[in-house]
Amino acid sequence: MTRAGSNQRVVIVGADPGGMAAVSQIRKHDPAAQIVAFEKGHWTSYSACGIPYFIGGDTRQQTLSELITMTPDQHRARGLDLRMGHEVVEIDVAAGIVKALENATGTLSEEPFDQLLLGTGGRAIRPNIPGIDLPHVLVAHTLDDAQALHSIADARMGDDSWNVVVIGAGYIGLEMAEAFVTRGHRPVLVDLQDYPLPGLVPELGVLVKGCVEHSGVEFIGGTEVTAITPESVVCGDRELPADLVVISVGTAPCSELAAAAGIELGAGRAIAVDERMQTSAEGVFAAGDCATSRHLITGKQVFFPLGTNANKHARVAGINIGGGQARMPGVLGTAVTRYLELEIATTGLSLDQAQAAGIDACSEQISTLTKPGYMPDSSTAQVVLVAERGSGRVLGGQIVGGSGSAKRIDTIATAATASMSVAQLLDTDLAYAPPFSTVWDMVAVAARELLKKV
Amino acid sequence: MTRAGSNQRVVIVGADPGGMAAVSQIRKHDPAAQIVAFEKGHWTSYSACGIPYFIGGDTRQQTLSELITMTPDQHRARGLDLRMGHEVVEIDVAAGIVKALENATGTLSEEPFDQLLLGTGGRAIRPNIPGIDLPHVLVAHTLDDAQALHSIADARMGDDSWNVVVIGAGYIGLEMAEAFVTRGHRPVLVDLQDYPLPGLVPELGVLVKGCVEHSGVEFIGGTEVTAITPESVVCGDRELPADLVVISVGTAPCSELAAAAGIELGAGRAIAVDERMQTSAEGVFAAGDCATSRHLITGKQVFFPLGTNANKHARVAGINIGGGQARMPGVLGTAVTRYLELEIATTGLSLDQAQAAGIDACSEQISTLTKPGYMPDSSTAQVVLVAERGSGRVLGGQIVGGSGSAKRIDTIATAATASMSVAQLLDTDLAYAPPFSTVWDMVAVAARELLKKV
Repeated sequence: MTRAGSNQRVVIVGADPGGMAAVSQIRKHDPAAQIVAFEKGHWTSYSACGIPYFIGGDTRQQTLSELITMTPDQHRARGLDLRMGHEVVEIDVAAGIVKALENATGTLSEEPFDQLLLGTGGRAIRPNIPGIDLPHVLVAHTLDDAQALHSIADARMGDDSWNVVVIGAGYIGLEMAEAFVTRGHRPVLVDLQDYPLPGLVPELGVLVKGCVEHSGVEFIGGTEVTAITPESVVCGDRELPADLVVISVGTAPCSELAAAAGIELGAGRAIAVDERMQTSAEGVFAAGDCATSRHLITGKQVFFPLGTNANKHARVAGINIGGGQARMPGVLGTAVTRYLELEIATTGLSLDQAQAAGIDACSEQISTLTKPGYMPDSSTAQVVLVAERGSGRVLGGQIVGGSGSAKRIDTIATAATASMSVAQLLDTDLAYAPPFSTVWDMVAVAARELLKKV
Repeated sequence: MTRAGSNQRVVIVGADPGGMAAVSQIRKHDPAAQIVAFEKGHWTSYSACGIPYFIGGDTRQQTLSELITMTPDQHRARGLDLRMGHEVVEIDVAAGIVKALENATGTLSEEPFDQLLLGTGGRAIRPNIPGIDLPHVLVAHTLDDAQALHSIADARMGDDSWNVVVIGAGYIGLEMAEAFVTRGHRPVLVDLQDYPLPGLVPELGVLVKGCVEHSGVEFIGGTEVTAITPESVVCGDRELPADLVVISVGTAPCSELAAAAGIELGAGRAIAVDERMQTSAEGVFAAGDCATSRHLITGKQVFFPLGTNANKHARVAGINIGGGQARMPGVLGTAVTRYLELEIATTGLSLDQAQAAGIDACSEQISTLTKPGYMPDSSTAQVVLVAERGSGRVLGGQIVGGSGSAKRIDTIATAATASMSVAQLLDTDLAYAPPFSTVWDMVAVAARELLKKV
């Protein structure tokens, strides 16, 4: 079994970004590699993150195809032996063989590999609630889900008697609530936590909650859903009328195939990988929503099923499979979204997370403007910055504010990646002009205030 | 002459941001200090950067006062002994005395100081061209300039026979051209260079030129203005009709007073300062558009008259005057602007500048999208990234693109400040969601391509 080099056979399981984004890197480093990919469904390389915007009627063409980066035929035109409708049902690591079942015919075939890439992705979690399998209970994970939800939203456009309940107010839940509001509906949003977006500090979470409520959406926090009926969602002592229920309580890794092959699982039961994205089995790599990451600051293994990580995973795995050398240095869990006009972003550790990781940390929250008050589209923004006491090392931050605020989280992410101190961040020459920022950028304002504490 | 500590007398010359922004820091570190400030004009603490937007009719209230951060009375209410209409005409460093002339009365007074802060600011350069002193030739530097230009623009609103020529297509010239376009006029923009914004690489400069021309503005590049007449501007073999001429060819430091006192001048004839913002004379500090900065990468003294630097200068000078310890580590010349829908930003060194500084550098330019193509407001963006060969250290970058692209220059500025490598920048966990970015942020895309060269 050769591990790299000319004429090696590479098998990829799953046509999610975690698998497909690796292909170009494998080709680049090992042009002679034979690459076979199996996908049990009928979609390749699509943007799951675009689904809420598609459903909300907010994408350019309002067709599913616009979310697809590369179709099966486009992959094949580039020389990939892509077998759609084929489910890999077993991996024999020692023999270097996968067994695949062709859905249409029920035929089982064997495919040998020198190196294997598991890009099996994730699935939307369906919590164990009575009624969870009713036909009006949907998730927003695959393009099939997207099409179903889009069709329903189209059909019910302007129907005031139509009731939607979104269960789970994480990023996707919030984006789905926005999608229905954009469509003119007033969904109810239910979450276990008192405010949307777990991970946000409460002070910022309540701002998001206020914005959600201001848009006419009822937010029911601190409440568990106990049952779903054909007409309602039961939570606490409420029975909410529900013609459509959208479940968005998180993503689980599709790691059962790997586990059955004896490959180690890690954080969140995702497939454990090293910095090279190699699993516990030599020559077997994993990438994307099925695989773990390492947290850049704590060094701990984490499960952050995000598109950014999936693409970074795939690049690193592809280079290593192709015989090159690459490592995945770590992630910060940087995430961004919006709720209508409100932008929300987070990166790295919150104060609580830092302290839980044993770091002597401190935090400051400031309120400032996105741009000078005389600019007509100036609005407020809140920035939380977290740093280690003593060293002043930047550990993370959160931003909630008006237009143009959220992507400034990248400044904090970059500072945290470089282990910059708060003082260095304050001194950084950030861009200013009235259409873009105040003269001290909001991140610098936060650094200036936090500097008094570190 | 005490240098710091209780009851010291601090004199500030000039109520520009360079001087005024220091007051709070002096007070914080030395609450007992007696602070006297002299301003020869009648304005304090205003945003010069807001002037083009005020003239363009783009600010919220369309009043001069909205550009003022703090009025003379507000400064006085905070205990500052502020003497408006007083011009400091002489500094006796050895004796620790300034001499000030009260404009209204012609009275000359002496004021002793323990420490002195020169915040004399800059002035708009008026090149030596015949006709430069004609009454219809204005600059856009002070609030008086702003009021005059605003009144003219108001009076000529909708007058198609009214001709404006803007001389100099730097940041202010470009912003002034935009202001007149916003007002419905079609100014002519003239510059010595072939495209707007000196410092941009030609490939990006031509994009800005294209956008300017697309808006109906004639751009005349590579051409020197040789004369201004009461009705026209003569440049090359053209005579452009001109009812109003706006000069925007740069800012010069107001350093004559310092020079006359024997204080050393430096880059651009600005007042030379050390990292503490102290001039060649002990106890005499300078801050703002009259003072030099140190370039963070080359280590060389530079003259970058920018609002960001002025405020950083003032903070550092104020802390040191108050007896604290602060240093100004260096600047990158980060700048951002827009021309209508096009955003433009730059930081650090271009390839040419890096090579001129003796650095073995390389550069890559990429074209990408501001957000995924299926989002309706997605547009193109060009990113240039510059790094040192071998080490891969990020040296600078430039961005020209649609909405949401320019402030991403902060990621490059932060990376350059931290001496991050291009590989580290590529690995940085930058924020992605479809309303904000592509899954690989444009800066990461540039890093990925540049990595192949370093």
